[in-house]
Amino acid sequence: MKVTLKDGSVREYEQNMTVLDVAFDISEGLARNVVGGEINGEVVDLRTEITEDCTLNLLTMKDEAGLQIVRHTTAHILAEAVQNLFPNAKIAIGPSIAEGFYYDFEADPFSREDLDNIEKEMKKIIKKGNKITRYTLPKDEAIAMMKERDEKFKVELIEDLPDGETISFYDQGGFVDLCAGPHMQSTKGIKAYKLISSSMAYWRGDEKRERLQRIYGTAFATKDELAAYMDHLEDIKMRDHNRLGREMGLFTTVDVVGQGLPLFTPKGTKMIMKLQRWIEDLEDKEWGYIRTRTPLMAKSDLYKISGHWDHYMDGMFVLNQDSEDKETMALRPMTCPFQYYVYMNEQHSYRELPYRMSETSTLFRNEDSGEMHGLTRVRQFTITEGHIILRPDQAEEELTRCVELANYVMTTLGLEGDVKYRLSKWDPENTEKYLGDEEYWNSTQQYLRDVMDKNNIAYDEEEGEAAFYGPKIDIQAKNVYGKEDTMVTIQLDCASAEKFGMYYIDETGAKVRPWIIHRTSMGCYERTMAWLIEHYAGKFPTWLCPEQVRILTISEKAAEYAEEVRKQLAANGVDVTADLRSEKIGYKIREARMARVPYMLVVGVNEAEEGTVAVRSRYAGDEGTKPVQQFIDEICEEIRTKEIRKIEEEK
Amino acid sequence: MKVTLKDGSVREYEQNMTVLDVAFDISEGLARNVVGGEINGEVVDLRTEITEDCTLNLLTMKDEAGLQIVRHTTAHILAEAVQNLFPNAKIAIGPSIAEGFYYDFEADPFSREDLDNIEKEMKKIIKKGNKITRYTLPKDEAIAMMKERDEKFKVELIEDLPDGETISFYDQGGFVDLCAGPHMQSTKGIKAYKLISSSMAYWRGDEKRERLQRIYGTAFATKDELAAYMDHLEDIKMRDHNRLGREMGLFTTVDVVGQGLPLFTPKGTKMIMKLQRWIEDLEDKEWGYIRTRTPLMAKSDLYKISGHWDHYMDGMFVLNQDSEDKETMALRPMTCPFQYYVYMNEQHSYRELPYRMSETSTLFRNEDSGEMHGLTRVRQFTITEGHIILRPDQAEEELTRCVELANYVMTTLGLEGDVKYRLSKWDPENTEKYLGDEEYWNSTQQYLRDVMDKNNIAYDEEEGEAAFYGPKIDIQAKNVYGKEDTMVTIQLDCASAEKFGMYYIDETGAKVRPWIIHRTSMGCYERTMAWLIEHYAGKFPTWLCPEQVRILTISEKAAEYAEEVRKQLAANGVDVTADLRSEKIGYKIREARMARVPYMLVVGVNEAEEGTVAVRSRYAGDEGTKPVQQFIDEICEEIRTKEIRKIEEEK
Repeated sequence: MKVTLKDGSVREYEQNMTVLDVAFDISEGLARNVVGGEINGEVVDLRTEITEDCTLNLLTMKDEAGLQIVRHTTAHILAEAVQNLFPNAKIAIGPSIAEGFYYDFEADPFSREDLDNIEKEMKKIIKKGNKITRYTLPKDEAIAMMKERDEKFKVELIEDLPDGETISFYDQGGFVDLCAGPHMQSTKGIKAYKLISSSMAYWRGDEKRERLQRIYGTAFATKDELAAYMDHLEDIKMRDHNRLGREMGLFTTVDVVGQGLPLFTPKGTKMIMKLQRWIEDLEDKEWGYIRTRTPLMAKSDLYKISGHWDHYMDGMFVLNQDSEDKETMALRPMTCPFQYYVYMNEQHSYRELPYRMSETSTLFRNEDSGEMHGLTRVRQFTITEGHIILRPDQAEEELTRCVELANYVMTTLGLEGDVKYRLSKWDPENTEKYLGDEEYWNSTQQYLRDVMDKNNIAYDEEEGEAAFYGPKIDIQAKNVYGKEDTMVTIQLDCASAEKFGMYYIDETGAKVRPWIIHRTSMGCYERTMAWLIEHYAGKFPTWLCPEQVRILTISEKAAEYAEEVRKQLAANGVDVTADLRSEKIGYKIREARMARVPYMLVVGVNEAEEGTVAVRSRYAGDEGTKPVQQFIDEICEEIRTKEIRKIEEEK
Repeated sequence: MKVTLKDGSVREYEQNMTVLDVAFDISEGLARNVVGGEINGEVVDLRTEITEDCTLNLLTMKDEAGLQIVRHTTAHILAEAVQNLFPNAKIAIGPSIAEGFYYDFEADPFSREDLDNIEKEMKKIIKKGNKITRYTLPKDEAIAMMKERDEKFKVELIEDLPDGETISFYDQGGFVDLCAGPHMQSTKGIKAYKLISSSMAYWRGDEKRERLQRIYGTAFATKDELAAYMDHLEDIKMRDHNRLGREMGLFTTVDVVGQGLPLFTPKGTKMIMKLQRWIEDLEDKEWGYIRTRTPLMAKSDLYKISGHWDHYMDGMFVLNQDSEDKETMALRPMTCPFQYYVYMNEQHSYRELPYRMSETSTLFRNEDSGEMHGLTRVRQFTITEGHIILRPDQAEEELTRCVELANYVMTTLGLEGDVKYRLSKWDPENTEKYLGDEEYWNSTQQYLRDVMDKNNIAYDEEEGEAAFYGPKIDIQAKNVYGKEDTMVTIQLDCASAEKFGMYYIDETGAKVRPWIIHRTSMGCYERTMAWLIEHYAGKFPTWLCPEQVRILTISEKAAEYAEEVRKQLAANGVDVTADLRSEKIGYKIREARMARVPYMLVVGVNEAEEGTVAVRSRYAGDEGTKPVQQFIDEICEEIRTKEIRKIEEEK
């Protein structure tokens, strides 16, 4: 039997060997560190027997796959510790996940203090270093054992397994868990772990089943790596838009209004207005769009034509559904057919194309409250949504322009480094979900590929992510927690014009079906706001700040002058406030910084006499004393050009 | 028996006299012209007998009340003419109305040609000059007669009258109509009449009953007065926003989208955007408002607190009403509670008040499609709606400022002459519809009276028009058809803060309930747009025009120069297009006028060489040739100042 190792070397054995045996055969030190193996690319337990020729990769904690094994074992230690301290807690499931692990318990909610105590108990278990052993049982015996242990969730899990299957367990000195593995050899090897948080979860994610308490934790190979990760978590928490956005007073939610329905405060509203007016003017004045304003609802008739009534009704808010005297309507989930009817309001010749419509459009999704999150999972959002009606010969240039515009927008916002492009294709296994045949999809998908290739754009491809009428170029970004969302989408649609009877008059006077591009140039304002908050940790580029300048008086004698400066700045369109309170200047500066105001103008009697302001900024700290007009000129230029000044570490 | 006439003179009679007898007694000429009388202020038939002392006003066609009698008689002549021409037509009812009369028939729809023929038939009847006689019948005989004549609607009407009543009829030479009168003496006196239009109506306004055809007509004392009225109708038709707005391509409606849900085209959208940005900046930068952006829907919980769930549910769009797993919500009919929660998101001290919030807010009304009309009766509209949270001592000044702002807005739009102020009060007979007691309503209503009196504002008072939480100052305007709508509302509310638990911290640190002003500074954008279209007949002030300048080339040689001028104007923010077609210049000018473009710049080779433009405007016709920069400076100033230039009659 030949075992080929990762470095290419080959070892020959006469008898069967476990993974651990091979590690021992190589060196005792390796055997101490090895936590699992990969046979022919499949992760396996140290205890797995090798019976025929294979390639073997020995996994230590340095390998991502090895770390997963460590974390999974840590989850078992957590479960044991919880049952030591809370004997009535029932264990549910406890997998490793992307950056750690969790375990679900039926128990009372855990406090941070509980978690600290559980961590201490885990330390004891690890110190004891019980050997972890694996054994299997037939299904009926497995059920009997878990019934005896009074673990109803495990019983249910086993009952759901196919009959005749042998079922594996791991035992670490008395604590036994149903588990497919793999696991470490003993509880001893865990060197750096941490319980992070606890929250409620439903058994099997079903809100009609038992309420469980989920404890999240993580483990790393070294204490340093764990510490770095905890710092990273802290940073994420600080940036999390759902916390920071509320703390900065940009938005709030209200129980009686509902989840997924954020209320933007005056500060948040000001930011969105800056974004909105910028995008509207950019599209209309510089990129050749014309703007429409169409209703947020329509009769069911419209959605029957568009196909939404049959394919998307669950996600729509339906109005007057069972009314006898009022018409059945629905809130719109998209702007497409509304803009099609604006196009069709007049007849268009080939010379008038491309006809580029855009709308500051509010859209609705009828989702469960449990799915709602901050500004990223909402029931109502507003987006600059547009449809370009065009001749086929114009598609390449227009698609390129759409990508360019989206890229210009993201670059201006400083977000271009966060994104990835994706070609979203149909699902050839599920053709009934889509309009058009294979030939249609192959050709439109290739069209988008060609456009991206010509523009030297790197992209992934993903099946089943297309719109039902055509493939998409999606621009994706991740939030602080690593969750990916589509921020911008550019879609090619050669099918809808037929459905709605749209046409243009060509050179010969004939009526011809146009192609359609569905596109956005920026993600919806809610999501973009969330993205900006997380990207900048609330320290937005000056032009976007709801409060760009705060004037701070050193003494009450400067109040009149401060008010004068405030008015001058306001008259120049700067968002400025004045803090005239008789607090200490250090205190006022601290507050302004907390509010993330980029510029603080400190004024006292001297500045009043000289007509100057002492400028402090988060960009360069003390920027010196300047004549008022010079500061106005500088900040207006910074705002006009949408400059993104580099932020110095604040002292 | 003493009869006192209008001029104060008294006539004594021994016997009973009809009104007509008295007229004859005065003069034969008067008797020829008199069409009815007013006894002690009540309009009566010429045939009415005077049996005791009274004041009598003899009515001729010069009197409004006399004209009503003429129109009513004309309606009977119309009915006779219709039955002459269409013997199967059944007659329903035929009253006089504000500016004429109508008659409803069960018949096939009438074309304009039919109406012309009916007018001719009416002429014959008038020429014949049959005497009109009045007689009464007991109920059973009246029913029998109308049954014999196969007039089912009349039968139904009579059956609904109280038993024992004697029922009056008017006969004009064989054509008999159930009628309370009064009527003229014969069909001969009608001198000037016209059938205006025909449309569908339901018997008794009930859409479950028979479909009828309603013919509208009018009559006047003289042919000149009729001609003047028909000109006026023509003008109204030309101004009607529901026709002109579509013709100008400002908006459209689509059957499958639904009535009351206009789609604004790029031109209409541009106008609304100009209005919206102006109002937002005006409120926020000059009038001390801060802007919010709150959700268009909320859970039923919110509306239960506000009272809408119990009192206004019929007018709301309810969402997920019978859903098992999704929350029941509703689209908002107003912004109030959403802004209250923005206020309550932070604690406020007495020093921070008044706290003036405004929002560009979209609101919804769940109304029947039959009630929908153009831009004035819609299911969804957007308005700058605001709430000022304030201390009671600030209310007078703030209310005054609200009136001033609304007045400033209307004056800037040139609409201030169209409006009337109204104090909208509660209905003391229907107190259960309102919050608060009599004392509350008396004091708040007096408060608003005082504010208007101090500002020298003339106003009417109307009961039953208040909001349920407080009285209103409503600014009313009429559309071209004379229908009055509320354009701006300013409301005082001393009751809601308690309901929502709103407070501020006063000088002593105590929590105190604020007062609230609900206000708009402009009507909703849809209605304002309709008002502007009708007021200006589409010839808006330059700053509001979606197309402010059109450049017209005389020859193709000037195309490049035209394009250069267009770019310069666009760079200065002017909405400009260029007509480079090789059409005749006269044709291009005509088209630009039809599109109601205020400025036409005619350019040819000469202008290109000299860097000038030949300016034609609807304000002054030929404005001469000017250097491009001069024209840019002038139009930019006109736009910046929102000047309303007087329009000369176009030649």
